[in-house]
Amino acid sequence: MTGATWHYEQFDKAGSAIGFRIVRKLDEVQSKFQKIEIFESTDWGNLMLIDGAMMLTTRDNFLYHEMMAHPALFTHADPGQVVIIGGGDCGTLREVLKHPGVEKAVQCDIDEQVTRMAEKWFPELCESNGDARAELLFDDGLAYMRDAAPGSLDVVIVDSTDPVGPAEGLFNRAFYESCFHALKDDGILVQQSESPLVLLDLIREMRGEMRKAGFAAFQTLPFPQPCYPTGWWSATLAKKHSDGRLGGFQFRAGDARAKAFPTKYYSADVHQGAQALPPFVAAALDG
Amino acid sequence: MTGATWHYEQFDKAGSAIGFRIVRKLDEVQSKFQKIEIFESTDWGNLMLIDGAMMLTTRDNFLYHEMMAHPALFTHADPGQVVIIGGGDCGTLREVLKHPGVEKAVQCDIDEQVTRMAEKWFPELCESNGDARAELLFDDGLAYMRDAAPGSLDVVIVDSTDPVGPAEGLFNRAFYESCFHALKDDGILVQQSESPLVLLDLIREMRGEMRKAGFAAFQTLPFPQPCYPTGWWSATLAKKHSDGRLGGFQFRAGDARAKAFPTKYYSADVHQGAQALPPFVAAALDG
Repeated sequence: MTGATWHYEQFDKAGSAIGFRIVRKLDEVQSKFQKIEIFESTDWGNLMLIDGAMMLTTRDNFLYHEMMAHPALFTHADPGQVVIIGGGDCGTLREVLKHPGVEKAVQCDIDEQVTRMAEKWFPELCESNGDARAELLFDDGLAYMRDAAPGSLDVVIVDSTDPVGPAEGLFNRAFYESCFHALKDDGILVQQSESPLVLLDLIREMRGEMRKAGFAAFQTLPFPQPCYPTGWWSATLAKKHSDGRLGGFQFRAGDARAKAFPTKYYSADVHQGAQALPPFVAAALDG
Repeated sequence: MTGATWHYEQFDKAGSAIGFRIVRKLDEVQSKFQKIEIFESTDWGNLMLIDGAMMLTTRDNFLYHEMMAHPALFTHADPGQVVIIGGGDCGTLREVLKHPGVEKAVQCDIDEQVTRMAEKWFPELCESNGDARAELLFDDGLAYMRDAAPGSLDVVIVDSTDPVGPAEGLFNRAFYESCFHALKDDGILVQQSESPLVLLDLIREMRGEMRKAGFAAFQTLPFPQPCYPTGWWSATLAKKHSDGRLGGFQFRAGDARAKAFPTKYYSADVHQGAQALPPFVAAALDG
């Protein structure tokens, strides 16, 4: 293809790389926190990179956003109060707001520029930003969770970048303790949890930090995500009780089947299927 | 990492690329059919490339080989006679031979050099080549299936490269007709069927050709495969009857749960889970 170039991202920990065929750079901004770049690709729509790391593409972000939102929201019996930490592209917020029972969804991303770039280059992800139930804050997520009223939240979704740079503090005990206190007794914490193939140690460490913070039950759900390392990603859900009290991880499959909104990847059966961890993943996480 | 370089493979149809960090080239042979290269990588063990296309890595080939073999063999009521077309690296053969009910497994790959390179650089995949039930042929798979005795086979696994070059003839009606005639009434055809995200049109075309050849029921099972385009791949199973006669695609879940051999990715639950096609895939394949 004349004029097309390739953008590669090398994943040092994985020893692998992913690339996309690029038409041109559309935009770039250096915010107070990070460098945000937008590219037009030949086959994946627009791409957003933060400090050189692929955040999302127009074509495949539905996989991630649906799996960050719907499994947790259909696992909780009645999610009314939802907080998203990070998630500045607003894609997770859009999925959360599809649930009619949600009364309030706060998105707290430290970097307003991420949302401004999403509004401009991924407008479809921002189509629910004007929803009366949505509140967009541009502030420190650590502080927001530390200051949240105890026992006030049903679901906290940590939709962050990798545990380096601005997001490093979102992967440790102190932050998870804030989440624990802010969640009601039957509340659910969701964290994007990296590749189940090459970053299993990170998922294990993350669960360990969550456990130290008081969480007692965990569920890691894998899903495909071509623009992230290895193309295979995961979300980890955590609850306060391990004894199946308050429903455990049994989800409202009937409600998921009868949902009035469309999804491209998520379905009750896909949700059920994602719970079947491959033996090598199950063995590593049980250990 | 000092001395390490990156090998990238660009996927023209997908507009994406995958790369691995390479230590050095270990081997190279130009066979009568194709160029086979072996690289040592920093994190993925050895890599095999054929005409520049990634075939397998030491680290992630279990995903593909297990999903090419076990779903079909646990779906068939009693698979005794199995043929693998292609599959010269012997990984699928090894998985097939784990089933004690298999009486004979013929592997017919056109290029002996692929197997010689596998024996040298992926010896673990070849550990069952000496099994008394295994027969390794180096011959034209098209001719082999054309000449196979009618109604003699339980499972035919088409473990081929992509539908270009030597493998092109393995993706069309004429070849599938040979498979149809060689299979018993309850026989199962398995074909690696590319990426469910970016190559859905190819899966649809393949099913169309299979249908023209007489096959009536299809099942596409997605699975992660980091070294192939998008990191998300699939296997498609085909049967002669669509009315659920002879079991349809209901598999022997009890036997799969009680299996005496270990697997890393496959399990009865993963098999069940893979049957839950994401809505966008189901919609495309039903259309």
